[in-house]
Amino acid sequence: MNAGDYLKSKSQETETALETCLTSWKGAPPKLMEAIRYSLFAGGKRLRPALALGAAEIVSGDQQVALPLACALEMIHTYSLVHDDLPAMDDDELRRGKPTSHKQYDEATAILVGDALQSMAFEEITRTGHSDVVREVARAAGVSGMVGGQYLDIQGENKQLSLEELQKIHRCKTGALIAVSCRCGAQLGKGTVEEIDALTHYGEHIGLAFQITDDILDVVGDEAELGKPVGSDEGLHKSTYPALLGLEESRNLAQKAVDDALDALESFDEIADGFRALATYIIERKN
Amino acid sequence: MNAGDYLKSKSQETETALETCLTSWKGAPPKLMEAIRYSLFAGGKRLRPALALGAAEIVSGDQQVALPLACALEMIHTYSLVHDDLPAMDDDELRRGKPTSHKQYDEATAILVGDALQSMAFEEITRTGHSDVVREVARAAGVSGMVGGQYLDIQGENKQLSLEELQKIHRCKTGALIAVSCRCGAQLGKGTVEEIDALTHYGEHIGLAFQITDDILDVVGDEAELGKPVGSDEGLHKSTYPALLGLEESRNLAQKAVDDALDALESFDEIADGFRALATYIIERKN
Repeated sequence: MNAGDYLKSKSQETETALETCLTSWKGAPPKLMEAIRYSLFAGGKRLRPALALGAAEIVSGDQQVALPLACALEMIHTYSLVHDDLPAMDDDELRRGKPTSHKQYDEATAILVGDALQSMAFEEITRTGHSDVVREVARAAGVSGMVGGQYLDIQGENKQLSLEELQKIHRCKTGALIAVSCRCGAQLGKGTVEEIDALTHYGEHIGLAFQITDDILDVVGDEAELGKPVGSDEGLHKSTYPALLGLEESRNLAQKAVDDALDALESFDEIADGFRALATYIIERKN
Repeated sequence: MNAGDYLKSKSQETETALETCLTSWKGAPPKLMEAIRYSLFAGGKRLRPALALGAAEIVSGDQQVALPLACALEMIHTYSLVHDDLPAMDDDELRRGKPTSHKQYDEATAILVGDALQSMAFEEITRTGHSDVVREVARAAGVSGMVGGQYLDIQGENKQLSLEELQKIHRCKTGALIAVSCRCGAQLGKGTVEEIDALTHYGEHIGLAFQITDDILDVVGDEAELGKPVGSDEGLHKSTYPALLGLEESRNLAQKAVDDALDALESFDEIADGFRALATYIIERKN
């Protein structure tokens, strides 16, 4: 199983569902919907939806039950990018090679695009009928998850962080939502407690591998392939894995996280091959 | 029944529940929690929680079932104020007589306070176990409700709006969340379809009365009592009811909305007296 093909097939399912969701919004201001669409269809990899769909498929053979969750996760991820790019936050002008939302429109629109996407995400998850899934996603997205991590990240600029502090930031900022994608996908697929735990651990490990690789790409990546400037972490004086550990040790740590992710999948047969390919892809990707 | 006493008793219930909710967040960055607390306990009237608790009480005699909803509504309302006050939006420096979040802290913190409050709100509502209530609140808060209304409001600055356009903005921006407070409170109290509809209509009418009165207070209000500068709408060249209709006609329209709200309560006995007092209070208030 090729990771690119796997991501692509899950991504197509997600895009169709996102399209259906957006066109169902009658009565909303058309220009605001256009700005939402601009960011939501900006060429993201749809990693979180792929994890939600894949986890449901692994435990039940059916990924459809997780489609509303997949859409919601992409909406939450997109809202966080739109807000993170704002001048008061990371002040980024390019995202995936295109002007960021506040450059393409204006700051007020970008703030409201993010706010609207978050509400839309929670409405979308209610289609699953599972209050506990809404709760887990809200927790992963909020003050002790993604938003809390972004806050710590900004507070950590221009400071020398310890490895422990850096890991805490990333566990919150990106790890929590990636792990909950796997976890809630498995819950919607009615996996056993052991299956849900195994896929949660897989998500935690690839989340770590993903973030270390992001830091490495910001040092050694190709600007054209990344679609954003390299060296932006250094410009913001952010603590990163390469800055703290050096490139080689960072690569070792990422590989260790991938190995741990693969171990977590041990009890699954070839139905989890897509997830296995994905784990390796995450540290080998160029963007 | 005195509206002030009614609001105060509901507000005390809400504040206790909000306090319990905030202290339950372990692992979140303490400074971010402090900034959330600053905005959430800034002396708001807790109108939306009062409506949710009151509606549940009217149909069932028990308001406790609506407490998580009450907290969530106040979190959503507070997040919208924090974001609306941002420099890129209404650029307000004072709110209820205190520096706004981005003045007290900084813009990045204010953006994240709002984002975190929205996630927290949806987690809180899941305590009711009702996915449909999560869905209705998400819809009222989102792109065809509160956020959509705020977008239209900003787009309408420096433009001459028609009365119809102005009403659409307010129906979305403030009306939707006020109406859903009553509606979902009644749903959680297991009201009949007729009761839920009656309380929804009550909410729609007082939402309109509330907004017209806000516009009037921005013209004739007392800055010290309001806790914010008067004349800010004029400064932003916003269309308002007084600007479109004159003060007297605006007051008549607000009175008409209150009368409609009272009519909607016709089928309820004295258990709805608090709601009756509230309707009148809304257009007589000084802040």
